[in-house]
Amino acid sequence: MNDRRSPLTIECCHTLKVRYGETDQMGVVYHANYPVWFHEARDVLFSEIGVDLVRAERDGYRFPLIELHCRYLYPARYGDEIDIHVRWLPELVARMRFQFEARNRRTARLLSVGTSVSVVTDRQGRLMLRLPEAVATCLQQAAEKATLHSSGCKQ
Amino acid sequence: MNDRRSPLTIECCHTLKVRYGETDQMGVVYHANYPVWFHEARDVLFSEIGVDLVRAERDGYRFPLIELHCRYLYPARYGDEIDIHVRWLPELVARMRFQFEARNRRTARLLSVGTSVSVVTDRQGRLMLRLPEAVATCLQQAAEKATLHSSGCKQ
Amino acid sequence: MNDRRSPLTIECCHTLKVRYGETDQMGVVYHANYPVWFHEARDVLFSEIGVDLVRAERDGYRFPLIELHCRYLYPARYGDEIDIHVRWLPELVARMRFQFEARNRRTARLLSVGTSVSVVTDRQGRLMLRLPEAVATCLQQAAEKATLHSSGCKQ
Amino acid sequence: MNDRRSPLTIECCHTLKVRYGETDQMGVVYHANYPVWFHEARDVLFSEIGVDLVRAERDGYRFPLIELHCRYLYPARYGDEIDIHVRWLPELVARMRFQFEARNRRTARLLSVGTSVSVVTDRQGRLMLRLPEAVATCLQQAAEKATLHSSGCKQ
Repeated sequence: MNDRRSPLTIECCHTLKVRYGETDQMGVVYHANYPVWFHEARDVLFSEIGVDLVRAERDGYRFPLIELHCRYLYPARYGDEIDIHVRWLPELVARMRFQFEARNRRTARLLSVGTSVSVVTDRQGRLMLRLPEAVATCLQQAAEKATLHSSGCKQ
Repeated sequence: MNDRRSPLTIECCHTLKVRYGETDQMGVVYHANYPVWFHEARDVLFSEIGVDLVRAERDGYRFPLIELHCRYLYPARYGDEIDIHVRWLPELVARMRFQFEARNRRTARLLSVGTSVSVVTDRQGRLMLRLPEAVATCLQQAAEKATLHSSGCKQ
Repeated sequence: MNDRRSPLTIECCHTLKVRYGETDQMGVVYHANYPVWFHEARDVLFSEIGVDLVRAERDGYRFPLIELHCRYLYPARYGDEIDIHVRWLPELVARMRFQFEARNRRTARLLSVGTSVSVVTDRQGRLMLRLPEAVATCLQQAAEKATLHSSGCKQ
Repeated sequence: MNDRRSPLTIECCHTLKVRYGETDQMGVVYHANYPVWFHEARDVLFSEIGVDLVRAERDGYRFPLIELHCRYLYPARYGDEIDIHVRWLPELVARMRFQFEARNRRTARLLSVGTSVSVVTDRQGRLMLRLPEAVATCLQQAAEKATLHSSGCKQ
C-alpha cells in the first residue's frame, strides 16, 4: 500500500495459519477462503479500536457486505502463516471500505489483495445512513491517535 | 442398508455433485463436507414428506444436531455425482435419528456411512419434548404410506 | 445483462438450493458462498459445451482464479432456489473471463452479480499462453452454434 | 477427561476464535465446523511434538480420516474464544485415534466432545501398516516426556 496516509486511516495486521480443509485439489488455498480471512482480519481491526461487534449485533446492527474484490497473485499453502493487513478507509456516509493484503509471513510474498465495502442495517435489513454511535466514537478516537501500531504481524 | 424395514421407516435419496472447493490437497473430498451433504439430504427428505423447514423455523422451531457419526470408506472426487441415501428412524421422543449412506452414483461404490441425531428446540434453545405438530403429521402420513418411492437416485 | 451479444458469447444457467450451513447469523447466505456458487455454475457451463474439467486436470492443466469481483444486492435465504446465470467472455489470450448473475428463482429478484478471471497453468503453476486444445475446440464449436440454449433455468 | 492417563497419552490445547461465517441462521456455530476445528487442533498437537505434516505430505504420506464422532452439548457463538483440548491415544497399529473437547474459554463450559480416527496411506491412497518413521520417533519422544505441558489454553 502507498505511503501517504490520511490521518483517518485505521489499520492493523492479523496472522492466521492455513487450515487443511482450506486447500483444494490444486494443493493450494481455495480462492473462496480469502474473503473469510479478510472478514476475520476486519473483525480484529474493529476489536483493536474498541468496537464490540457482538454487542453491536445484539443492539440490532448488521454490517453486510455489498461489494467484494479480490486479486490472487500467488498461492498460499497448508500450514503457511498468513499476515492479513487490513486498512479501514472511512467515508462520510455509513459505508465501510476496507483494503486487504495477504502475505506469506515467512517470505513476505504478497499473495492476494482485496477490498470490501460494508454497510450498516438494522435487524430488518433496512439501510442506516449513519454508523452506530459506538462505532463512530471508536473510529474517531482511533483516528485521533493516528495510525494504530498494534499490528502484531511484524516479527 | 438391510432389507427388513419397520413400517415407520421414512427414506429417500438425494443426488449432488462434488464442488471443486469441497476437495482438499489430497485430491479428494475433505471429510467435513460429508456432514453438510447429509444435512442437505435430510432436508430433502423433510421436503419430500411435506415438512416445510423454512416455515418451521419461522414458527420458532429449531432442529440442532446433538450427535454426528461418520465413517469414511472410500474417497469422493471433484465432479463425482454422489447419491445420498437417508433414512429417518423415528423415535417416541422428539429426537430425530437419521442414517446416511453416500455412494458414487456411477460406480455404486459406498463412500461413507453416517448417523445424526437432532432435537427440537424453541427460539431460545429450550429443548422440546414433542415434535412440532406439522412435522408429526407429515411423519405419520409418510409412515402410513410406508416407504417412500420418490428417491430419484435410481437411474 | 445487456442485449447485444458477441457471437462468441457462451452462456448457461445453473440452479441450486441454499444449504443450511451457507447461512450465517444474519439469517441470510454468508457472502463467501457466492464465489463457490459462481464456480459451480462455471463448471456447469464448461460441461455443457463439452469440456471435461476432470480430464483436463488429469492432463495437467489447472485453472486458478486471478480475480474475483462480487456485488451483493439482495440477500438469499435458506431453502431458496437460486439461478446462477453465467456468461463466458472469451479473450484472445488464455484468460477466461466470466460474468455471473444470481437470482432468486421464484421471484426473479437479482441477488448478486459478479465476475471472475481464470488463467491456465500447468501442474507446477506456470502460466500457459494458450487454452488447452480440448478446451479451445469446445469453445470454438459452442461459439459457432452461437448462444447456448440449454440453460435449464427458465421455468 | 478422566484423570488416569497412560504414559503414552499425548495432549495439548489450542485456542481459536469463532469466525462470523462459521455461524448459521440459528445464531450459533454450524455443526460441520467442529470437525474443522478438531483437525486444526490435531495439527497443532502434531506440531508441538515435532511432527512436520507439510514435510510428511511432501514425503508422500497422507493421513485421511476414517471415522469421526461428535457430540454437541452447548452452542458456540460468533466471537467466542474456544479451547480445543486434543489427546492422542496411540495404538499399536498405524491408526491414530484422537479425543477432542471444545470448551468456551471464558466460561469453561463444555461445548462439544469428539473422536476421530486417521490412518496413514501413501500418495495413491494405499494403506500403510506403520506410522512414518519421523512421526513414530516424535511420538516416542513425546511419550517419554510423558504428558505435554505446552497447552497454552490455561490462562
